[in-house]
Amino acid sequence: MRFFSDNAASVHPNVIAALNAANNVDTAYDGDALSQSLDASFSTVFECDVSALWISTGTAANALALASMCPPHGSVICHKDAHIQIDECGAPEFYTHGAKLLLGDGEGAKLSPSTIHAIAGSIRKDVHQAQPHMVSITNATEYGLTYRADEVGAIGETARQLGLGFHMDGARFANALVHLGATPAEMTWRSGIDIVSFGTTKNGTMMSEAVIVFDKEIAEVLRFKHKRAGFLHSKMRFFAAQLIAYVVDGLWLENARAANGTAQRIAERLAATPGVTLAHPVEVNQIFAHIAPAAHKSLQQAGIDLRRWGSSGGDLYRLVTSYCDPEALVMRLEAALAGARTSTAGR
Amino acid sequence: MRFFSDNAASVHPNVIAALNAANNVDTAYDGDALSQSLDASFSTVFECDVSALWISTGTAANALALASMCPPHGSVICHKDAHIQIDECGAPEFYTHGAKLLLGDGEGAKLSPSTIHAIAGSIRKDVHQAQPHMVSITNATEYGLTYRADEVGAIGETARQLGLGFHMDGARFANALVHLGATPAEMTWRSGIDIVSFGTTKNGTMMSEAVIVFDKEIAEVLRFKHKRAGFLHSKMRFFAAQLIAYVVDGLWLENARAANGTAQRIAERLAATPGVTLAHPVEVNQIFAHIAPAAHKSLQQAGIDLRRWGSSGGDLYRLVTSYCDPEALVMRLEAALAGARTSTAGR
Amino acid sequence: MRFFSDNAASVHPNVIAALNAANNVDTAYDGDALSQSLDASFSTVFECDVSALWISTGTAANALALASMCPPHGSVICHKDAHIQIDECGAPEFYTHGAKLLLGDGEGAKLSPSTIHAIAGSIRKDVHQAQPHMVSITNATEYGLTYRADEVGAIGETARQLGLGFHMDGARFANALVHLGATPAEMTWRSGIDIVSFGTTKNGTMMSEAVIVFDKEIAEVLRFKHKRAGFLHSKMRFFAAQLIAYVVDGLWLENARAANGTAQRIAERLAATPGVTLAHPVEVNQIFAHIAPAAHKSLQQAGIDLRRWGSSGGDLYRLVTSYCDPEALVMRLEAALAGARTSTAGR
Amino acid sequence: MRFFSDNAASVHPNVIAALNAANNVDTAYDGDALSQSLDASFSTVFECDVSALWISTGTAANALALASMCPPHGSVICHKDAHIQIDECGAPEFYTHGAKLLLGDGEGAKLSPSTIHAIAGSIRKDVHQAQPHMVSITNATEYGLTYRADEVGAIGETARQLGLGFHMDGARFANALVHLGATPAEMTWRSGIDIVSFGTTKNGTMMSEAVIVFDKEIAEVLRFKHKRAGFLHSKMRFFAAQLIAYVVDGLWLENARAANGTAQRIAERLAATPGVTLAHPVEVNQIFAHIAPAAHKSLQQAGIDLRRWGSSGGDLYRLVTSYCDPEALVMRLEAALAGARTSTAGR
Repeated sequence: MRFFSDNAASVHPNVIAALNAANNVDTAYDGDALSQSLDASFSTVFECDVSALWISTGTAANALALASMCPPHGSVICHKDAHIQIDECGAPEFYTHGAKLLLGDGEGAKLSPSTIHAIAGSIRKDVHQAQPHMVSITNATEYGLTYRADEVGAIGETARQLGLGFHMDGARFANALVHLGATPAEMTWRSGIDIVSFGTTKNGTMMSEAVIVFDKEIAEVLRFKHKRAGFLHSKMRFFAAQLIAYVVDGLWLENARAANGTAQRIAERLAATPGVTLAHPVEVNQIFAHIAPAAHKSLQQAGIDLRRWGSSGGDLYRLVTSYCDPEALVMRLEAALAGARTSTAGR
Repeated sequence: MRFFSDNAASVHPNVIAALNAANNVDTAYDGDALSQSLDASFSTVFECDVSALWISTGTAANALALASMCPPHGSVICHKDAHIQIDECGAPEFYTHGAKLLLGDGEGAKLSPSTIHAIAGSIRKDVHQAQPHMVSITNATEYGLTYRADEVGAIGETARQLGLGFHMDGARFANALVHLGATPAEMTWRSGIDIVSFGTTKNGTMMSEAVIVFDKEIAEVLRFKHKRAGFLHSKMRFFAAQLIAYVVDGLWLENARAANGTAQRIAERLAATPGVTLAHPVEVNQIFAHIAPAAHKSLQQAGIDLRRWGSSGGDLYRLVTSYCDPEALVMRLEAALAGARTSTAGR
Repeated sequence: MRFFSDNAASVHPNVIAALNAANNVDTAYDGDALSQSLDASFSTVFECDVSALWISTGTAANALALASMCPPHGSVICHKDAHIQIDECGAPEFYTHGAKLLLGDGEGAKLSPSTIHAIAGSIRKDVHQAQPHMVSITNATEYGLTYRADEVGAIGETARQLGLGFHMDGARFANALVHLGATPAEMTWRSGIDIVSFGTTKNGTMMSEAVIVFDKEIAEVLRFKHKRAGFLHSKMRFFAAQLIAYVVDGLWLENARAANGTAQRIAERLAATPGVTLAHPVEVNQIFAHIAPAAHKSLQQAGIDLRRWGSSGGDLYRLVTSYCDPEALVMRLEAALAGARTSTAGR
Repeated sequence: MRFFSDNAASVHPNVIAALNAANNVDTAYDGDALSQSLDASFSTVFECDVSALWISTGTAANALALASMCPPHGSVICHKDAHIQIDECGAPEFYTHGAKLLLGDGEGAKLSPSTIHAIAGSIRKDVHQAQPHMVSITNATEYGLTYRADEVGAIGETARQLGLGFHMDGARFANALVHLGATPAEMTWRSGIDIVSFGTTKNGTMMSEAVIVFDKEIAEVLRFKHKRAGFLHSKMRFFAAQLIAYVVDGLWLENARAANGTAQRIAERLAATPGVTLAHPVEVNQIFAHIAPAAHKSLQQAGIDLRRWGSSGGDLYRLVTSYCDPEALVMRLEAALAGARTSTAGR
């Protein structure tokens, strides 16, 4: 059964083709033409001169990004449900050498300027407390909500006022962009973001992410941290190939559009199913729904096995769609939901 | 004005005398008789065979203690207002190499078994999350409450069930002991505690704390971490001298009894003052009181300058008494409170 | 021009095929059948029950392996020219949280038991010095020499006597095995090795290495460190696929045999070229040769561009062969060497 | 028996008096007048505006100083016999989060510009190697030699050319100063030094060292690292008191002069003793001498127990004098040496 996570999705044929093509190149580390063109490719995407540091997981991308601007004795303001706090086994603490995460709350895993101000304001300006050095948001969030450009900009302005670096975890950045109809530039550096974890693995590649850096000095330091963490792959061309295939010709946005579209279809059916309530608006490819036991049982009987979310044992479930969900599978889920509606309605 | 913190208290004359006596000894590091007798002195105090590792601050004692049983990829369960979380600028994260603190709540900065179970239960048993390896409590707590031996024992049993090491921050351990009428053994290893930060500086010494370890293997590893952190003082005899003077002949308990007694006197007067409410029961030498503006102004006019507590700018104040608060000073505060009572009452 | 490094070699068609096949699987992290069978595949290779932890670079494999048995306050004995000392930008120090490397010397980057004893003996058994906890060797070494099973066993015995963990960096393990005609078991755990960095990327895969662990408890801890470092790829099946394709049907040994054979052919020609001296016996796929200026110039004129080795600007050059060096290329090099012989001889 | 180490020396009466006086002050942390005047006192000593960060051991002072200018992915050039390499159990690696020490050689533990250039030159300018960020020297060295101001200046110029920070471990700085007749300013910032570990414990205080910083931004960051390492003592006044008593009225130089003078007397006698050879010129208060077995036996018979130096079990011995060595003791040693001369001569 699919919908467990976009982590499991297939690699797009264009990416497979690019990997095969890269196999004929014969240069170690980043000496090849593909690797050498990566900054340029991403500079085009972001409409400014960026450094694109390839890396093979989102966890490492986030942790490196945080280590770029937060010293060991500092702290990072983030949402209490942020991936960096919940799902990375302390990678941010490892890469920053022990910086603290200061946790805020907010609907749908979104941080607001006022929450950030409140957290920063709770820290005394003395050496007894780890002073905030960065703020980190996830766009789209861990609950599938997006920050609009003006919302990002407001946090960017807050960060500027408080002297904080500003990081965006973009594990599902493409999905946010197509939902918002915004450009990468608008959603990042034009809104004050300093550094981006640019996810691709959930949306069509095999295992390649990137850290996008808008400052050359930071990028220079990161290259050492990147090597020191063991991410300087000897055949970097295979990572560059994936990333370039992903962003050229808009493959990434096309894939995200497909995934978001499937999520909308399913979300509409879920919302119309008795006993089912959407926990959050569905903006990208993640759906969180409360499903009452009867409705859940009916789905199970139709062979639909959903993923329960959270450790509390409640009735919350998460479905994540992907660019490559087979139409037949989506239709089967829709049919099961229609059946659940009928059977429950019949009581 | 005193009552800001017991951190500022004078060094007890017995300790001064011990320091002077130690000056005639001529051995580097821990080669002298005083240093060599330290384990024995503390083994007597704790009624079992302990290793006593001297160290010059409570922050370092706590951080070392946490590093003894929590690996870098693990986490420590503690109260959200614990000193290790709030006031140590990330020292636990430094010494543990990036372990996480998992924060719980509870009245008066006390953790309960159910809170610990809830936090541990919220962590999935997979590699995506930093697994709990320790629980840490402060006794007396940061708000001046004590855990009774049976309460410590219940947490010890919880720790045992969950496979957690159990640390006690005893910055004001003596104050807790005399309030409870309990023995060091009852309050620590007999109740499941594995390692203790044994505070003395707030209660009569100059700058000597100790980490008390009940396991020889842990102690052996800590000796290396202790040196590596820069705490192997070349004239250790001066630390041993302080610690021994502190515990022999019950000086530590006598001092704590004096500080607690002064706190009781002041607390009673505070409670009787209109516009003043005690925020927590006063069990040791810390008093937290809400003082309404009129009452506070009246105290200020009498020359009493109290320390506002917390970053929220509210009406909470903290007073901490010490074994050496001059009687004249206490009487002056009592008089001011009596005056505040009258003047407010007269309205 | 090839022969710069086996780091640049193409991915073997069998591995490409395995990657393509893995694309049809749909499970996140290590939930798929390939990932689940990895331990079994490597247990067959090593003739004992092992844990195989996939990881995408040799630097990370080495650093993780060292972190498994050396505490932050400890040290690792290794050769002064070891990859972990020279070419990993401090990754061992990062992953171990600051352990020290204690450097020894030895012909061809080989350590001997007596050198290890001498280094360990130079460390006082007190807390002022970081005590040795591990020894690490590279087989084949950074200069292309191999340790025979009895040589590994002698170091294993030394490690046992000194209480040290024993790590092998096997970046070119296959090349060593086929040279020696030994089995993986003989060369590792039967000779006292505790943990192995199992290289594959230089010999036919795209970007997959493994840490082979012979102890289940160590493996369990490593899984957390591995995730925390950001190496838990969400599509692990693509790493498992590479590793399994590499070891099944002896592909790895076949590839190594090819690379070693090419190196032998070239080495013989080099040795026969006036002005050229082999710096070390050529046992695997690395050749180190002193090439006098005239001979070097002659090669350059024939279009052969060799890699100078070391920072001292001397006449030492390194050639590394690979399983996929085209026969035409090897012949061209041979011809150039023959030409160099003639032209030099003609003077 | 004395002469083992100046680490064991008594605390000077002036310092004891200052400690006693500080006991009447009642302010926590650094709120008191003594603490507040520390920067000013040391600015006078160094003839420029410095920040003086008190700390209780030299190991911590050195490690903090290195962490101020060397990032985790960097390296520090130092002598292979430097205290930071040999005797601090990895404290520099702990505080820098894993930076590497690059070791050079040189007579008497002295580094030269050419050695520093050679080490820096051996590091390729790529991300595979931890780039040098600092150089560290000890003055007087671990073998009791001094760098003259012009020698320090030449290293400072080298550091400037190579873009390195420059640290001085001044565990016995006073002894070097009085030997050279130079000023603190000449020997530090005027010669290019960025940061100083200012030792006092070996020369008259109880347990107080200082890190002297010539740059305000570095000092600001260090205050956080200092707290985070657990060195923000709650009764800082007792550290300030020691430091101020030490430097005012030239007590530190007077003590050093006494210790150096005693060393000269003993060194002359040693040099005149058959079977004894001085291993290094005696410039400060450390004497290294090769003592043949017969001479050594004769000294032992006279009750003189000397400290063998090094792990090799050779005939090298170290004697360290102190400002407070009793005249009677020195005379006894002199007599024994005279006796050794006679008895050996009689053979």
